[in-house]
Amino acid sequence: MTTKAPQQFASDNYAGICPAALDAMLAANAGSAVAYGRDDWTQAASDAMRAAFEADAEIFFVFNGTAANSLALASLCRSYQSIIAADLAHIETDECGAPEFFSNGAKLLTVPTQGGKLTPDAITAIATSRDDIHFPKPAVVTITQPTETGLLYTLEEIREIAATCRRLSLRLHMDGARFAQAVAALGCTPADMTWRAGVDVLCCGGTKGGMAIGEAVVFFDRALADGFDYRCKQAGQLASKMRFLSAPWVGVLTEGRWIGYARHANAAARRLGARIEAIDGVSLLFPVQANAVFVVMPPAVASALRDRGWVFYEFIGGAARFMFAWDADLARVDQLADDLASCAGASGRNA
Amino acid sequence: MTTKAPQQFASDNYAGICPAALDAMLAANAGSAVAYGRDDWTQAASDAMRAAFEADAEIFFVFNGTAANSLALASLCRSYQSIIAADLAHIETDECGAPEFFSNGAKLLTVPTQGGKLTPDAITAIATSRDDIHFPKPAVVTITQPTETGLLYTLEEIREIAATCRRLSLRLHMDGARFAQAVAALGCTPADMTWRAGVDVLCCGGTKGGMAIGEAVVFFDRALADGFDYRCKQAGQLASKMRFLSAPWVGVLTEGRWIGYARHANAAARRLGARIEAIDGVSLLFPVQANAVFVVMPPAVASALRDRGWVFYEFIGGAARFMFAWDADLARVDQLADDLASCAGASGRNA
Amino acid sequence: MTTKAPQQFASDNYAGICPAALDAMLAANAGSAVAYGRDDWTQAASDAMRAAFEADAEIFFVFNGTAANSLALASLCRSYQSIIAADLAHIETDECGAPEFFSNGAKLLTVPTQGGKLTPDAITAIATSRDDIHFPKPAVVTITQPTETGLLYTLEEIREIAATCRRLSLRLHMDGARFAQAVAALGCTPADMTWRAGVDVLCCGGTKGGMAIGEAVVFFDRALADGFDYRCKQAGQLASKMRFLSAPWVGVLTEGRWIGYARHANAAARRLGARIEAIDGVSLLFPVQANAVFVVMPPAVASALRDRGWVFYEFIGGAARFMFAWDADLARVDQLADDLASCAGASGRNA
Amino acid sequence: MTTKAPQQFASDNYAGICPAALDAMLAANAGSAVAYGRDDWTQAASDAMRAAFEADAEIFFVFNGTAANSLALASLCRSYQSIIAADLAHIETDECGAPEFFSNGAKLLTVPTQGGKLTPDAITAIATSRDDIHFPKPAVVTITQPTETGLLYTLEEIREIAATCRRLSLRLHMDGARFAQAVAALGCTPADMTWRAGVDVLCCGGTKGGMAIGEAVVFFDRALADGFDYRCKQAGQLASKMRFLSAPWVGVLTEGRWIGYARHANAAARRLGARIEAIDGVSLLFPVQANAVFVVMPPAVASALRDRGWVFYEFIGGAARFMFAWDADLARVDQLADDLASCAGASGRNA
Repeated sequence: MTTKAPQQFASDNYAGICPAALDAMLAANAGSAVAYGRDDWTQAASDAMRAAFEADAEIFFVFNGTAANSLALASLCRSYQSIIAADLAHIETDECGAPEFFSNGAKLLTVPTQGGKLTPDAITAIATSRDDIHFPKPAVVTITQPTETGLLYTLEEIREIAATCRRLSLRLHMDGARFAQAVAALGCTPADMTWRAGVDVLCCGGTKGGMAIGEAVVFFDRALADGFDYRCKQAGQLASKMRFLSAPWVGVLTEGRWIGYARHANAAARRLGARIEAIDGVSLLFPVQANAVFVVMPPAVASALRDRGWVFYEFIGGAARFMFAWDADLARVDQLADDLASCAGASGRNA
Repeated sequence: MTTKAPQQFASDNYAGICPAALDAMLAANAGSAVAYGRDDWTQAASDAMRAAFEADAEIFFVFNGTAANSLALASLCRSYQSIIAADLAHIETDECGAPEFFSNGAKLLTVPTQGGKLTPDAITAIATSRDDIHFPKPAVVTITQPTETGLLYTLEEIREIAATCRRLSLRLHMDGARFAQAVAALGCTPADMTWRAGVDVLCCGGTKGGMAIGEAVVFFDRALADGFDYRCKQAGQLASKMRFLSAPWVGVLTEGRWIGYARHANAAARRLGARIEAIDGVSLLFPVQANAVFVVMPPAVASALRDRGWVFYEFIGGAARFMFAWDADLARVDQLADDLASCAGASGRNA
Repeated sequence: MTTKAPQQFASDNYAGICPAALDAMLAANAGSAVAYGRDDWTQAASDAMRAAFEADAEIFFVFNGTAANSLALASLCRSYQSIIAADLAHIETDECGAPEFFSNGAKLLTVPTQGGKLTPDAITAIATSRDDIHFPKPAVVTITQPTETGLLYTLEEIREIAATCRRLSLRLHMDGARFAQAVAALGCTPADMTWRAGVDVLCCGGTKGGMAIGEAVVFFDRALADGFDYRCKQAGQLASKMRFLSAPWVGVLTEGRWIGYARHANAAARRLGARIEAIDGVSLLFPVQANAVFVVMPPAVASALRDRGWVFYEFIGGAARFMFAWDADLARVDQLADDLASCAGASGRNA
Repeated sequence: MTTKAPQQFASDNYAGICPAALDAMLAANAGSAVAYGRDDWTQAASDAMRAAFEADAEIFFVFNGTAANSLALASLCRSYQSIIAADLAHIETDECGAPEFFSNGAKLLTVPTQGGKLTPDAITAIATSRDDIHFPKPAVVTITQPTETGLLYTLEEIREIAATCRRLSLRLHMDGARFAQAVAALGCTPADMTWRAGVDVLCCGGTKGGMAIGEAVVFFDRALADGFDYRCKQAGQLASKMRFLSAPWVGVLTEGRWIGYARHANAAARRLGARIEAIDGVSLLFPVQANAVFVVMPPAVASALRDRGWVFYEFIGGAARFMFAWDADLARVDQLADDLASCAGASGRNA
């Protein structure tokens, strides 16, 4: 059987394994290796992460983003505390209660935002709104970089949020499901966007960056990682043949390939974005800053686009979301833009 | 970097990816595919499982055995109930509290056993020992097939346990981390060993059978699977690029390859077992029935063996455990037997 | 030492034990009795509840409202499901994550409301908003009667909500922390407001009704109560000397005393409400329907009132909340009204 | 209705409220008071506890022993850690999985004991048995004083266990459901038996000491109590009318009344114990050291005793347990001894 079908941009999870990750997996498959992460590949991957982040960080490789974020957040609070998040945060809208499950009941305190970006003022307001025992005391702030809407926090914005967190005795967690795309877009270093800006713990996306399976949890303060290995084990997130989770990181971190893949994904998004700005009747819901494009279009246009075989999700008041991965075929991006223009034109004529 | 090193038999988790699984992963990597299990490969893998088990079962692919067993057990009881297990059950001895975590507190009631095999009498005794509210009412029995000690339940034994469970209104769960090895050893069909014998839910091992990552949870009674998809999602066990978890199942189930691999692993174990019976000063702790060999040897012999580079764990009163995988090199098995004979002989002469 | 101090109306939890409850506690204290609820008083209290509700309900006596509501909701959903509640629901705003803790992660889906009252349309909208696996499927709706703002659902409104729930396969839970006050205000029977209207499970307030400690959980469908006794035990809500939790119910249910107490509390609230309507510069935030009065007043008035020794909480945009209990001293209510008028008048003159 | 019936000694939970506790509850019922523990009675009770323990401890009043022990233990470990306990510990045998529930999965590691008493050697053995990630790392040791079998740890034994705990970086928790009885029996001070001996956290029984409802959790190291107030709130253990939980402590602590009551209970047990030693055909399973008496008797004797109306539980290989409370009627104790002698004699003659 075969998977071959015209490429879709409904999600960056639709993409396969990037060559750098695949080659490393295949290389790791030679011979036998010690289990549960005490193998050479896992050591090498951890070292490569530390090098990439210029930090003596503690690294854990887990299976997916649900677990990475939920476990990291659970480690940063107790069940009777709370987590400050944007209203559009993935952990609030699309994790089926995973953070609450892993933390045994920590409450998400969500803040209304423009496009999913938290601000120091909003954090301060909710964190200081109450101090009675009936209200779960905030312990951690989580930001998604880039946001679920494809927006970026600037380094300065992250630093200000981190300063706010320190002032309020809150930890700062970054959901970096598309971390490489953010690094590529901002043109900064991984260190700049994380510990140098004040981030305590990063969940660094592997799957959306081109791996088959796997995310990394990066503790910049090793004291915060105490017991996290046991936590992963208990929560079903310790791979026995760990090398197949870790080797791909060696592959993509080598020579900065992960950033290269991310740059390509971002470029595809910008390409579509630029085309859309020139099409009458459709518009961008958010500026295109990373690898996502949200398109506002009339229902008739959306329907016509689907009739042409395009698959996409609708979010946030009905905008169509297109996400680009490491393997985005630019001709196919153009095809999408052409179809969109054509559908919008036809719709315009019919209106 | 390379993984190459002399093969060890400390664990069947030390082996790499078997060709059938790897080829399917590579095939699945062609092009893009829908995420979260709605892809063709996952459909094909589920169908292949149903065919292999001759049953219209509900199938879920999760990341590892910790999660497979813990989620399955959590779905079969409530937090205030209990799970009857053998004292040597992996879920009791080696999961760092995972069943308790996933079930939010269900208690394991363990039964002293010979080699990890539960009996109808032992189940009945503990299940009927108390009926007061201070004691968590048993809801499910779990058996490991083959056991952690490499022993097999006969089909008749499973049927009798299942009958006991029905009589006591208990569900029957099978931890089949090495399920194929048991099928190969008993020479029966997967159906005979599970639903035809009265098993309600099976956790079917992929990793120890030759995959990189992944286990299958098989619900023979579809009503019991209600909500299990959401349960997996919340617990961080829903893979976004599911095809890479499911395609390997298509690979190994094709033409019964999984049983072939298992047969090889079992043969390697029997080969070592036969050699050991002929060596003075060492002995088998359990009869060799699947792919495990437990060797009782004097500390000096164990130490000498380690000095020769052999890696192994000690279990159950200090016996050395050797586990064989799909890729066991028979020459290397012979090497182990030779080294063992040599070390035992030297120790005998010194004594 | 003594508790004597001028009566405050900051909370109906400030009141002591009503005579009917106290007399029963004292009567229950004669001699020894079987523990854990198998005593005669607990049997009598359960029977009295069944008589009061004209239903063969299953009754549980637990320690407080946090536990009553959280355990009841946990029994009506699984961890990966969700609970539909008003944005102002006590379980959302004032339980420090208790429902999430007891349910091990069930998510509260809150709906913006006017004064905390859910509507069939709002329930339908949120319950049908998504059906994907990333969203915790709603399993239960909870309404507070009277609401946290002192508003009442009419019987017709409850019936319509219940019909909506049945249509959507949702269970209906009622947080009746002030249940007697609602019954007294509507002039209906307990049965009318609950099972006859379609409520599945009621948490019936004891503490706010005049007990020292204790709430009752009432399952009108006994099948839903299966295992709830074990659930209470595991969650630390099974009293060993249960008679002291249950006897007060016998006391207050006798001759409808609980409704009499509630009627007095409601009357005190109406008395203050009527006075407030006549005072310039202050106003009612909500109509006075049960035993709560929310007063909108300028900060200077609030401050002046506090200077005169009055204690009150501010809710919902700064309105002062006054709650009346079974023991509300009407002269003291008048004193509050007088002081409020005086402070408002002074403030008006100063403005 | 009335509770009056011949006194039974099946449990010290069968007793009613002792005068000191009742008088304080009644005194606390005068007037209204601030809720949730910010009232004068709760302050006074905390101060009285600190005075009784000669320590600046942090005190919490919760509803029952299940919750007190489970919350205290949950605060001393994380879900992926473990709790070392005696095989006969109440938290293992009679709490329906409560410690696992409150801690979200911490595992109890039980040690075979003689009569439920842990030893330094047993603690060391299990705590150092494994250090791999598949085994939940021990974080806390719990001892019951007096044990569930009525035995006492000497002060020296507690000190040695505490020293062992410190050596192994484990916390020491004491389940003191019958703490006063232990103090009375050893003739020491509360301080001697707890913090001076190295206990970190004590759960101090109120119910079995003569209260209607309530236990105290005493943190001798205030740092360990951080967040415990929120933990209680979330777990349904924060009483709104807290004064009715706390005032009884003021009552019983005044002039050492709690120790007086305990002394009486112990004396009743000793009285029965002395009689039993003189009866042929029955014997004591354990020496009588506190308020429990375990009697080994032939089934025919047990049956005959039940025929005479005596109620008792059978534990530990069938011994009958008799527990004495603050109100034990010595004439009734003699009656029990007489009946026992008579039944045993009749049985002896028949044998």
